Amino acid sequence: MYEERIRCASLRNRIISARDAAALVHDEMRVGTSGFTRAGDPKAVLLALAERARTEPTPPRITLMTGASLGHDNDKALSEAGMLARRLPFQADPTLRREINSGRALFVDQHLSETVEMLRANLLGQLDVAIIEATCITESGGIVPSTSVGNSASFAILAKRVIIELNLAQPLELEGLHDIWIPARRPDRAPVSITDPRDRIGTTTIDIPLDKIAGIVITNDEDSSSVVLPADSDTTRIAQHLIEFLQHEVSRARLPAQLPPLQAGIGTIANAVLGGLCASPFEAMTMYSEVLQDSTFDLMDAGKLAFASGSSITLSAARQRQVLRELARYRDRLVLRPQEISNHPEVVRRLGVIAVNTALEVDLYGNVNSTHVGGTHMMNGIGGSGDFARNACCAIFATKSVAKDGRISSIVPMVPHCDHNEHDVDIVVTEQGLADLRGLAPRERVGLIIERCAHPQYRDLLRDYYRDALKGQGHTPHDLAQAFSFHLRLAQTGTMLP
Amino acid sequence: MYEERIRCASLRNRIISARDAAALVHDEMRVGTSGFTRAGDPKAVLLALAERARTEPTPPRITLMTGASLGHDNDKALSEAGMLARRLPFQADPTLRREINSGRALFVDQHLSETVEMLRANLLGQLDVAIIEATCITESGGIVPSTSVGNSASFAILAKRVIIELNLAQPLELEGLHDIWIPARRPDRAPVSITDPRDRIGTTTIDIPLDKIAGIVITNDEDSSSVVLPADSDTTRIAQHLIEFLQHEVSRARLPAQLPPLQAGIGTIANAVLGGLCASPFEAMTMYSEVLQDSTFDLMDAGKLAFASGSSITLSAARQRQVLRELARYRDRLVLRPQEISNHPEVVRRLGVIAVNTALEVDLYGNVNSTHVGGTHMMNGIGGSGDFARNACCAIFATKSVAKDGRISSIVPMVPHCDHNEHDVDIVVTEQGLADLRGLAPRERVGLIIERCAHPQYRDLLRDYYRDALKGQGHTPHDLAQAFSFHLRLAQTGTMLP
Repeated sequence: MYEERIRCASLRNRIISARDAAALVHDEMRVGTSGFTRAGDPKAVLLALAERARTEPTPPRITLMTGASLGHDNDKALSEAGMLARRLPFQADPTLRREINSGRALFVDQHLSETVEMLRANLLGQLDVAIIEATCITESGGIVPSTSVGNSASFAILAKRVIIELNLAQPLELEGLHDIWIPARRPDRAPVSITDPRDRIGTTTIDIPLDKIAGIVITNDEDSSSVVLPADSDTTRIAQHLIEFLQHEVSRARLPAQLPPLQAGIGTIANAVLGGLCASPFEAMTMYSEVLQDSTFDLMDAGKLAFASGSSITLSAARQRQVLRELARYRDRLVLRPQEISNHPEVVRRLGVIAVNTALEVDLYGNVNSTHVGGTHMMNGIGGSGDFARNACCAIFATKSVAKDGRISSIVPMVPHCDHNEHDVDIVVTEQGLADLRGLAPRERVGLIIERCAHPQYRDLLRDYYRDALKGQGHTPHDLAQAFSFHLRLAQTGTMLP
Repeated sequence: MYEERIRCASLRNRIISARDAAALVHDEMRVGTSGFTRAGDPKAVLLALAERARTEPTPPRITLMTGASLGHDNDKALSEAGMLARRLPFQADPTLRREINSGRALFVDQHLSETVEMLRANLLGQLDVAIIEATCITESGGIVPSTSVGNSASFAILAKRVIIELNLAQPLELEGLHDIWIPARRPDRAPVSITDPRDRIGTTTIDIPLDKIAGIVITNDEDSSSVVLPADSDTTRIAQHLIEFLQHEVSRARLPAQLPPLQAGIGTIANAVLGGLCASPFEAMTMYSEVLQDSTFDLMDAGKLAFASGSSITLSAARQRQVLRELARYRDRLVLRPQEISNHPEVVRRLGVIAVNTALEVDLYGNVNSTHVGGTHMMNGIGGSGDFARNACCAIFATKSVAKDGRISSIVPMVPHCDHNEHDVDIVVTEQGLADLRGLAPRERVGLIIERCAHPQYRDLLRDYYRDALKGQGHTPHDLAQAFSFHLRLAQTGTMLP
């Protein structure tokens, strides 16, 4: 059985049940899994692990490392089972989020390019088990990943034992799509020799000693589909502002006519912005990004996007079925890389990527909070936004100017948590307009951000704050006694409006 | 005359006075000069420019870009003359600082690797004049820099006109010390092919069309000496904690026995920490840093440091005389690079640099303020700390636990300005002790930072804050109403102590 999927005959007798695989996980183990923004995550073993809580009086509590967020309620099930002692480097599950914010689960919020760098340097302990979804296994035992690469390759290389989830629902045409290249341990490390998003520098399989493969679990489940919302009038306006800005940059010869490679963060706004480029005059664009969403394929279908490099493919249900069915049509224009490479500062800087990421809130000087609601409660994590924003040729942060029917302003006097500071944020854009902060001093930024980006109903409040702040002088005027007045009012009255 | 210094005969008739050179600068011009942490700055033309304020009713107001800070009271003189409309990317002058904090001069505080990247991309306008200190000019007209490279090469390449300050006080033995390599404009950019601090990838001169050289001004002045203070008992203890930590890392095979290349920021603490390594067991160390201070040469003299790569040499008066006199002794162990390369994220990440930089203050979760006193008033600028900390294999921030005789705690509930966030800060060290934050969730960091790094007289206050903050829960507990209580108390009473 499974001759086509397990071409290495000596591995065919390693097939085990998800339950038997889950039994290999013990208390306090470090477990690393495939999965990046819901794509290519384990479909069976983590859920079987969570099941153990129903029968075992003291189920294991583990450290779970992934590429990024998981689908299939993996994080929910493990959280409800009380099994997640520590989780890194990213998540997007409401149940786990509650565990994290209550302090019951410890979350380490990392730049997505850095997790395996730390693991390799022995800074996160020894990985006990890796659970990796595969499309197939080659004659020599090479593991062909599925819809994401994420941290799978380094997890498989660094773990003591590897469990493969062979997913029959992933089309065999995925083979050849991946480019696996892992930096050497320092000090003998060569450059990452990518100078174009199309470059391939590695192999198409993850290669590990076969005796590390503790079992192969057969699954047959599609990826959880993306939860990205369709474009609305606000996200369309954000896209329009950005396209206008990019055209302006091209007209001034600051950007090449076909634009530098694009990155877009996960989520509704970034997806809408990228999708908006379908109606732009730009041609032959490329992406050097982490997650490839619906908009990537919209742009390809519109003949606008020549090539896309990413670490995962995360699509809406309908798009997923269509793309996987017609993979042959897209294959030559796609590559999936380890997230360490898709997000590598070296490559991002060299290529001069245009990075579009979502802000939770932005302050008067362009400091961005991407992660902490109210400065305290974790949303999802910084993800790749820091890998890209620090090194991009143009770091763009997009947000709607208000949330919750206008009760929350996304432009605030001071961010209570800073993920991206004034040194890294080039452009802020809302449906109201776009502020180009490049080369400006803090005092010059304030006016642009208030008048172009803030919602009109908050502009007077922001102007009042800045006028008071100016009394204390300084390079970056602030009134520390009032700096969080918006946030405190929201907590007390349910709205940032007085 | 000057045959030895101006070996290109056709340039010998370009010698002009500093006053005539200064007359080439007009209102609203963008001027880029050599100079990095006081080393290799212009000695005559900027001062002659400032002199124009004495005779001209409306002296020019300019944008001044440098490598980093200048010596010779250049910034002071220009500030007093009211000539600095805009200044970037770093400064360290008290008079200019007052102008910046009052809003009279606009300061753009940038990662030091990024200024010429933005200039090359046409994001900071066209550079009108470059003023570059040189040691000599070769037969073919190549400009040999002096004690720093900084942004000199790109400034000279990108400016319309170039003024050379030929400084007879800089020893001719400096020729050959520099390695000038400039990244190509994108999209045709190759990797920075440095895989060892010793690697040379460029030329020893800055090469520009000779017709751009508007004049050569002869000077004969030493660099302003460093203002770094000698080690004291606190900085010695900081160094001891760090050496102990590094030994521990080596013993656990997390670091190689000779350590990865070291970077140390400008200033008293970083210099003391590096100097402390003279008494360590480490051998054959290397540096991949921006400024080479006294400690670099102390380590070389102690036989501990095999090689140092930097962008400038900034020394105390006595050390400067000795090193320049005995340059032949050190030359083979030194290279000076453009700051874009000395600080390049690509190389810093590849080499796995250990980065030691100074914090102004640190909060309970490891967020670092490097720049803004009280969250508002600019000190010097972020400098290279962000270039290094984001990409280092180990980002260390050092500070004394208290300042102003204990009236100010360097450990605060929340930083009112965040230059380096929890995602980038690995180690915090004060004279009290060291907190290793790697792989820890925010709630785990608090105890380490309070108990190991805070001064004992502030620990109860910090514990009280955290206890209150915990009531609101969250991944990163904070009480926004109290977050700046330390800073507000200091402003009201002159001390952070109640």
